Amino acid sequence: MTRARIVGTGLIGTSIGLALRAAGWQVSLQDPSPTAAALARDLGAGTIDDETPDVVVVAAPPDVAARVVAEQLERWPGAAVTDVASVKGAIASGVAALAGPGSVERYVGSHPMAGRERSGAVAGRPDLFEGRAWVVVPTPRSAPEAVDAVRALAAAARGEVVVMTADEHDAAVAAVSHVPQVMATLTAARLRDRDEHAVGLAGQGLRDVTRIAASDPQLWTQILAGNAAGVREVLLDVQEDLAAALDALAALADEASTSGADDGPHGERRGEHANALGGRYAPAPGAPGARAVLARLLDDGNRGRALVPGKHGGAPTAYDVVTVVIPDEPGSLGRLFAEVGDAGINIEDLHLEHAVGHPVALAEVSVLPAASDRLRDHLRSTGWRIH
Amino acid sequence: MTRARIVGTGLIGTSIGLALRAAGWQVSLQDPSPTAAALARDLGAGTIDDETPDVVVVAAPPDVAARVVAEQLERWPGAAVTDVASVKGAIASGVAALAGPGSVERYVGSHPMAGRERSGAVAGRPDLFEGRAWVVVPTPRSAPEAVDAVRALAAAARGEVVVMTADEHDAAVAAVSHVPQVMATLTAARLRDRDEHAVGLAGQGLRDVTRIAASDPQLWTQILAGNAAGVREVLLDVQEDLAAALDALAALADEASTSGADDGPHGERRGEHANALGGRYAPAPGAPGARAVLARLLDDGNRGRALVPGKHGGAPTAYDVVTVVIPDEPGSLGRLFAEVGDAGINIEDLHLEHAVGHPVALAEVSVLPAASDRLRDHLRSTGWRIH
Repeated sequence: MTRARIVGTGLIGTSIGLALRAAGWQVSLQDPSPTAAALARDLGAGTIDDETPDVVVVAAPPDVAARVVAEQLERWPGAAVTDVASVKGAIASGVAALAGPGSVERYVGSHPMAGRERSGAVAGRPDLFEGRAWVVVPTPRSAPEAVDAVRALAAAARGEVVVMTADEHDAAVAAVSHVPQVMATLTAARLRDRDEHAVGLAGQGLRDVTRIAASDPQLWTQILAGNAAGVREVLLDVQEDLAAALDALAALADEASTSGADDGPHGERRGEHANALGGRYAPAPGAPGARAVLARLLDDGNRGRALVPGKHGGAPTAYDVVTVVIPDEPGSLGRLFAEVGDAGINIEDLHLEHAVGHPVALAEVSVLPAASDRLRDHLRSTGWRIH
Repeated sequence: MTRARIVGTGLIGTSIGLALRAAGWQVSLQDPSPTAAALARDLGAGTIDDETPDVVVVAAPPDVAARVVAEQLERWPGAAVTDVASVKGAIASGVAALAGPGSVERYVGSHPMAGRERSGAVAGRPDLFEGRAWVVVPTPRSAPEAVDAVRALAAAARGEVVVMTADEHDAAVAAVSHVPQVMATLTAARLRDRDEHAVGLAGQGLRDVTRIAASDPQLWTQILAGNAAGVREVLLDVQEDLAAALDALAALADEASTSGADDGPHGERRGEHANALGGRYAPAPGAPGARAVLARLLDDGNRGRALVPGKHGGAPTAYDVVTVVIPDEPGSLGRLFAEVGDAGINIEDLHLEHAVGHPVALAEVSVLPAASDRLRDHLRSTGWRIH
């Protein structure tokens, strides 16, 4: 049986303990706070003892992770040691500088791509890593056995193992995690200037864009500092796009402020096609170009967004959607699914629209494109209304 | 009984129709596409006829809204006319220029702060506006009776009426809607440079920040152009914050790249507190200041985020979500729905997560809170795995 030691029993450490226990591993727990370690033990994440581990997981904050890794390498001379911090190059350099001779080979970085809005052992769950990427980051000096031990750990915790170099990892998380954090922060920071009335108009879009702006400033200062070069590189490109957008907006604002001047009498204007949004009468030179700049940027955003995988890590796939009207009575959905099953068609995704007070609901049934016409025909022939 | 006419039966128009019908109003529907109007009618949003309305709602794209408002003012000389576009100053100028003499007094702008990532009549719902702000924007020339009519409309659709001038409105939505759109777009646009591997590391944070980057570029070009001055003003402040963050990151990246040079022998280093994240050995002058810049920005983001209102009553209803593991084989969903029906429980909403290459899918079944424990017990007892 494999024995793991977990150093740091917050959300991630506790979840790893729970996941490894579920996989039949033995787990020892350690935390600077005895209370925190005891809580994780009581939650079933492991035991508190000094059994010799095969692999040690350092789940400590990024600014102390390298030091704790070095300590663990020294304390357990037979164990592979990994950390789970969200920057990897800086930790690896720190370990290389701090670790005793002949021990740095047992260090392999890792980064499970999982987290929750909540923190602490109580929020831990054994399925936190299920189906999510767990990046394993060997250093050039990592021994193959150590890499295998950390891969086995990630797989036992049910993560999907992805191997990357520290540079690859840090560039990737800059784009998919650290820069989004900065952008959410920049957006939220601007709300401080607004009165309550204005912020009261916020909708789901603002809530989504700014949700992670509530993240811990101390932790994120460490993360951004630890990946400063990678984050900066992406943000420089953002800065360039932003400057182009600002130029376009300046041209459009000019156009709008000058276009009011030469409104003709009403009679001449009515019936003409008029673009009410600036430039309706005397477009300033360059303003059509300004719209094109914005449209191209928005389109780039569409294309980037389309690359973002769905909730459970699957590649986005294009399905055809068949929209079926469902009478709002118990058993209707059961009948629909029985019909779909009869047609031998698999439902790939499904969304049910059911608004309170609405006489009918709509089921949006996603199927492989090849099956959609057949499904529509089959459902129509059996009396369903298709939209 | 009040009679409304809705011109444009997309998501918003159809939802207004459904909401007004639920409030006992009579509703006539009109759309340039007869199919779209018929769909909204079939969904219960109103009838297709030429009855004289008391109030007309123009739910057309922003670049034609002013023209359509002017046409409706002319066609229905006794009706108040409003639009629902998300910019107000530009539409009001357009209406003032295009409307016939003596009719501009019957125009009052409005902007219901509701939307969904999905569009079209099929996504319409009668509770879309419930508990959300519905901004009513009189022009200096609006007649009091017209303002009252539009306020009554917004209240009947269950929006929370907020009265603002066009300038107040446009400045507010720049900060809470238009700039967040630009920021989501800028973030998503950078993902195009990344390989699949990198984007595969995305988590919920990236999904949230970039969700609205999937918005329609044509519509958003119109919106941003229509509020160019307001959006630009906020984005100039963002540009300043971004420049400060870039300077801080440059200092930290310099520090990290030079700090490796003077690593002492291991023996001297071990046991010391070491900050693994840059500046661990010979902090460059100014680097502590750089961390303070980032920390202050992140803290500003915290404070801005804290101002964002929650879903307070705005969410149609809070349901409990029961997550059920579905074997990926034809007929599984049918069996699930049969079981739910057997338990006498109505499904209020449902989302199926089905990732390619994964052996199982997850069905997120929303039910009334009072029913969720019973549903969990029933499904477990009949052999389903509940997450």
